[in-house]
Amino acid sequence: MGMAGGGKDSLIGVVHRVAAQMDGDIELVCGAFSSTRQKARESGLDLRLPPDRVYNTYREMFRREAKLAASQRMDFVSIVTPNNMHYPVSMAALDGGFHVVCEKPMTLTLDEAQNLARKINQTGRLFCVTHNLTGIRMVREAREMVAGGSLGRVRRVVVEHPQGWLASRLETTGHKQAAWRTDPRRMGASGCISDIGEHCAFLAEYVTGSPVSEVSADLTTFVKGRPLDDDGSVLLRFGNGSTGVLWVSQIAVGEMHGLRMRVYGEKGTVEWRESDANALRIVWADRPTEVIRRVSPSSPGMDAGGMPLPGGRLDSRLDSFAVIYRSFAKTVGQVLSGQEVAPEEYGFPGVKEGTRGVLFLEAVRESVHSQAKWIKVGS
Amino acid sequence: MGMAGGGKDSLIGVVHRVAAQMDGDIELVCGAFSSTRQKARESGLDLRLPPDRVYNTYREMFRREAKLAASQRMDFVSIVTPNNMHYPVSMAALDGGFHVVCEKPMTLTLDEAQNLARKINQTGRLFCVTHNLTGIRMVREAREMVAGGSLGRVRRVVVEHPQGWLASRLETTGHKQAAWRTDPRRMGASGCISDIGEHCAFLAEYVTGSPVSEVSADLTTFVKGRPLDDDGSVLLRFGNGSTGVLWVSQIAVGEMHGLRMRVYGEKGTVEWRESDANALRIVWADRPTEVIRRVSPSSPGMDAGGMPLPGGRLDSRLDSFAVIYRSFAKTVGQVLSGQEVAPEEYGFPGVKEGTRGVLFLEAVRESVHSQAKWIKVGS
Amino acid sequence: MGMAGGGKDSLIGVVHRVAAQMDGDIELVCGAFSSTRQKARESGLDLRLPPDRVYNTYREMFRREAKLAASQRMDFVSIVTPNNMHYPVSMAALDGGFHVVCEKPMTLTLDEAQNLARKINQTGRLFCVTHNLTGIRMVREAREMVAGGSLGRVRRVVVEHPQGWLASRLETTGHKQAAWRTDPRRMGASGCISDIGEHCAFLAEYVTGSPVSEVSADLTTFVKGRPLDDDGSVLLRFGNGSTGVLWVSQIAVGEMHGLRMRVYGEKGTVEWRESDANALRIVWADRPTEVIRRVSPSSPGMDAGGMPLPGGRLDSRLDSFAVIYRSFAKTVGQVLSGQEVAPEEYGFPGVKEGTRGVLFLEAVRESVHSQAKWIKVGS
Amino acid sequence: MGMAGGGKDSLIGVVHRVAAQMDGDIELVCGAFSSTRQKARESGLDLRLPPDRVYNTYREMFRREAKLAASQRMDFVSIVTPNNMHYPVSMAALDGGFHVVCEKPMTLTLDEAQNLARKINQTGRLFCVTHNLTGIRMVREAREMVAGGSLGRVRRVVVEHPQGWLASRLETTGHKQAAWRTDPRRMGASGCISDIGEHCAFLAEYVTGSPVSEVSADLTTFVKGRPLDDDGSVLLRFGNGSTGVLWVSQIAVGEMHGLRMRVYGEKGTVEWRESDANALRIVWADRPTEVIRRVSPSSPGMDAGGMPLPGGRLDSRLDSFAVIYRSFAKTVGQVLSGQEVAPEEYGFPGVKEGTRGVLFLEAVRESVHSQAKWIKVGS
Repeated sequence: MGMAGGGKDSLIGVVHRVAAQMDGDIELVCGAFSSTRQKARESGLDLRLPPDRVYNTYREMFRREAKLAASQRMDFVSIVTPNNMHYPVSMAALDGGFHVVCEKPMTLTLDEAQNLARKINQTGRLFCVTHNLTGIRMVREAREMVAGGSLGRVRRVVVEHPQGWLASRLETTGHKQAAWRTDPRRMGASGCISDIGEHCAFLAEYVTGSPVSEVSADLTTFVKGRPLDDDGSVLLRFGNGSTGVLWVSQIAVGEMHGLRMRVYGEKGTVEWRESDANALRIVWADRPTEVIRRVSPSSPGMDAGGMPLPGGRLDSRLDSFAVIYRSFAKTVGQVLSGQEVAPEEYGFPGVKEGTRGVLFLEAVRESVHSQAKWIKVGS
Repeated sequence: MGMAGGGKDSLIGVVHRVAAQMDGDIELVCGAFSSTRQKARESGLDLRLPPDRVYNTYREMFRREAKLAASQRMDFVSIVTPNNMHYPVSMAALDGGFHVVCEKPMTLTLDEAQNLARKINQTGRLFCVTHNLTGIRMVREAREMVAGGSLGRVRRVVVEHPQGWLASRLETTGHKQAAWRTDPRRMGASGCISDIGEHCAFLAEYVTGSPVSEVSADLTTFVKGRPLDDDGSVLLRFGNGSTGVLWVSQIAVGEMHGLRMRVYGEKGTVEWRESDANALRIVWADRPTEVIRRVSPSSPGMDAGGMPLPGGRLDSRLDSFAVIYRSFAKTVGQVLSGQEVAPEEYGFPGVKEGTRGVLFLEAVRESVHSQAKWIKVGS
Repeated sequence: MGMAGGGKDSLIGVVHRVAAQMDGDIELVCGAFSSTRQKARESGLDLRLPPDRVYNTYREMFRREAKLAASQRMDFVSIVTPNNMHYPVSMAALDGGFHVVCEKPMTLTLDEAQNLARKINQTGRLFCVTHNLTGIRMVREAREMVAGGSLGRVRRVVVEHPQGWLASRLETTGHKQAAWRTDPRRMGASGCISDIGEHCAFLAEYVTGSPVSEVSADLTTFVKGRPLDDDGSVLLRFGNGSTGVLWVSQIAVGEMHGLRMRVYGEKGTVEWRESDANALRIVWADRPTEVIRRVSPSSPGMDAGGMPLPGGRLDSRLDSFAVIYRSFAKTVGQVLSGQEVAPEEYGFPGVKEGTRGVLFLEAVRESVHSQAKWIKVGS
Repeated sequence: MGMAGGGKDSLIGVVHRVAAQMDGDIELVCGAFSSTRQKARESGLDLRLPPDRVYNTYREMFRREAKLAASQRMDFVSIVTPNNMHYPVSMAALDGGFHVVCEKPMTLTLDEAQNLARKINQTGRLFCVTHNLTGIRMVREAREMVAGGSLGRVRRVVVEHPQGWLASRLETTGHKQAAWRTDPRRMGASGCISDIGEHCAFLAEYVTGSPVSEVSADLTTFVKGRPLDDDGSVLLRFGNGSTGVLWVSQIAVGEMHGLRMRVYGEKGTVEWRESDANALRIVWADRPTEVIRRVSPSSPGMDAGGMPLPGGRLDSRLDSFAVIYRSFAKTVGQVLSGQEVAPEEYGFPGVKEGTRGVLFLEAVRESVHSQAKWIKVGS
């Protein structure tokens, strides 16, 4: 694995590296860690990479890696740059013949998403968007529960993610994370709704198995001088007749890991919270409430199929990325050994899922500027 | 006090009677408890009222009470009928010269609300709408906190009230409460959004001190055969520039007393939950979170100014009605003794507050049928 | 029903009156409400009793009630005095031919308990100790769950009741409740351990169905100048081989209704908390955790067999007393109509249960003054 | 750093390695990872150590490392073996001239503890016991709060750690962790009370700043065929007049990370829970409850002085070890550069703290076999 972005100040770079290497099947062999030459170099040395595999630019990385022997060169690149670079780096990687793992949002526009889909198709390379919530065991359990029908028809979805870290103008204090997340050039045309709202919409679609068909959105920028939205609410209508509310915020003082989803079916309700991510609460109309926990009480912090985390605990977020990398590495292995794998067997979110997020954000943006109550989400 | 409605099957009638008589200053002296003669009579006897003060109709009650000596007759009537009777009984009571305490919603239409306001003005009688949340100590605390400015400007309000008791068609099983709450004739043109949504909107306005100026609403009827909405979400815009989300449901399986409000200000967040109604949580941007509890730990279940409840506990709901009746009784006493009291000194919600609820419901109904994104709330 | 004690300043008197009269089968007809003549009288008038049924002393009450016609006189007396009067009033009531409902602790000493048991036997009157926790639905559910064997053999019981209201010397500030509860003359030889510890021990025995056989206790008085213990811990051994810890406190600053019990069996754990008294949590070794709630989600705050409480809520404490009074009234009715009822069919706690509490307190007191590690609890 | 123990099946080995290397100041350079030659070798290779630094025995490691140049050899050893090896490996390491970090319990007997103390004294090497709870920020905060006097005098300490993973006979199923923790040869003379009870006792002493002076203990083995205790309760008396209860269990079905401590002072209560380890709850007698959180809401998962954890989260357990290693490494650095550092400036728990644990366990064992109620804890 090579890495694009994820240098010293990056939060998400560390997560990807640790998660990818968790099982021992994936090894970081090279990287272009920063657009700043000095920082790129230092980051690579910190990671004890050989100096000749630490590149100054992603283009250089793809060009020079491609020339290495197959046994030596990276098999895929993990793209953890700011949002604006997801598309160009993905395109360049595919052109260079590499498989790609890319952070969300996949692209900044629908045009880009469509170009990317074509490119993937042409090159036949594997492409994964790290919608990491799909890697959380309890989220998968919820999805299966809905699909299995035990909750009856889904009627209602409520998904929220309040955060408070941008309640004041942190981006002017030298805080790197705040800086790029509030900068349209690197972040794209949406702020909060892209950073955390897309996750929520995707989560709702993933668990209910039904696409969002229409939205009515209200986005706001509360902090003066900030060019992007830092708060938003969206009314949702789903293809299957259910409805929902989604709201996200970066100015909700005091909230930290507030992601929470409630799905109300005819016969029962299923609730998942990021703050207790290894549990799932199911309230039944006609029998006792159940709480499912991923970690069995008889094993102190370990679960059979799960990941042996330091401390015998399970960090659901780290684990969720590991689950995705594991699926991706497996499929890369199959492809390298000449096997045919159909997209529906991938076990990781791909260009189709990435495009859903882009479509959602486009519809929300249209809704914000429109006088019409409902805006259709393209497909 | 006389009572209109509140017979044997009524839930809310008992609450009003217990709350009103809690302090010993108000005594139930007569009533027209039901539109069914037999039930009206039985209810009166159960309450040990003298048979000649148990009336068959509210018109009879007002006519005959008016003829009694001032020392004997009821001073005011408490109206706890189904919604459709709030307006006619209120009008008749005022015409009869009685002060009025009326359950919400005050009227079913804006026309009625305006007629009622005029009537109150003409007769000079006192009128109270039992928006009981205004009687909850911690809700008042939240309001004062916002007004005092310690949270900074309010940016965002999230208020929700999920209930699950109507997730199936309970109204066809002989359940009286379910029956009238899903019957447009008795309930009016709105279901869930009127039953619990109006409370939420009023709560948001009351605590933030800012009126809802625009709404974008999506109401749904999920249970087949039910003529009224049983679920709804509303995007809110307030006069002061803040925004909000309100969502309510009667089909949220497993939810019971889920009313919860979060108000996000620039410097802090205040949160109140019905399920822990005697507590208020305040999260500050720059210092430890605080939890205020109404009942001091040094007195086992009693609080100085509060209500001595059986068991040394405080039932916040019962107490909230008692607070309102106490204010009302005090003002009635002042008026009876010839004092002038200005509406802003009442200490209980009146026709102005009741009209806010009616305006909110009208705007929501308009929004549901409109293609326009935002509908203005009249004033 | 007549009442001994429970005058104006009494907390528990109100609870007993409301609970007893909840169903309409029991009516308060007379009382000797206070040892102070003036207060006795005023309390009676406040309760709208006829003046000739408001007595100055309990002896007068029993003497004069006994002379009334059977249809008129009270059938039983409810004793809600400070602890030191439980025994003499019970004895006098039985001698007068009345059935008795008595607050806990039943007596202050084992001698008294044994005398009382003999007297009950001789007179053939019914006797109930209001161990009200036995009237809580979820506590009964827990007991049945243990008895049914689904948890496997019980291994371990942890029961605690921290309170903080006596963390400072409240008894010198005119606080009546604090005054008698810290006064050995009225309270008996134990303070905190009698006031709330006895409840806990009884709860443990009631739910597990196994008597406490040995104790090792450490009681402390933390507030200077207080003559009775205000905190205590007790190691427990049960007849069936299980062990436990019990701890109670009146100086645990900030704690209010902290009663909590955990019973660990071989196959599962059952947990009940007073602060969420209508729920029971069961953790299974091999399947999802269950939460049982007394109130079904499909009925807003009401439960079929339960008590129609104001506000559609269930106050578990009030309700628990009502359940006991209901059982008692039913048995009194059967006895009055000439039926034979065996003690094991009573459905309310009697002299046997009351004696358990006295035995527990005696053993704890012995343990405190002994150098021996374990003190046997008599039987 | 070298490591003794911590091979492939070890839980705690991983924690130590990750925690130690978190900051980049400590590097793992060698190890004797297992008593099984094959496993020792494989573990070393998995960790990418040079084969000549992977030793078969700890004696070999100390002998050969001692011969390397100062710049090359390990500076200290981290001992993460089963309990029985803590003492011999520590002694050998000190004899070899190495500083030592050792898991708790420091030794199995008081004799060993005293020998070890002498050896440390003689060799002048640094010695650290990883009582990791002392590395938790909120635990330190609690300690400072008590020391600062804002809670008033401490009266009462309640500390509990229920676990359920050994509720059935897991040790016979091939579960390595269960196997050695229930084997007296490797675990020592105590089971549950040593594994988690010592932590609790130490925590109580650490936060209150007062040593446990007397204990009255009841230990039980509930699972048939298990030679060591799997559950226990201990009444505590502290040097400063406060009292306490400590209870731990390995058979509490369903409990996982249940460590919780409540300290009740005259003016306030402080509560810490492992399950929400980055928060501290302080209940004041006379002002609102406060909740302190380590992570400030304005920085998403990061805290200034803290550890940059993958995912921007803080795993309190991992972090607590890192804090200890950081202090240790700093002191080693000072010593290597010829500085004098007094033990009270170490900032990590040493032989004195380790001895407290051994003394506690000795007193508990004596109490279990004694008829006397209170057993003094040596000092």
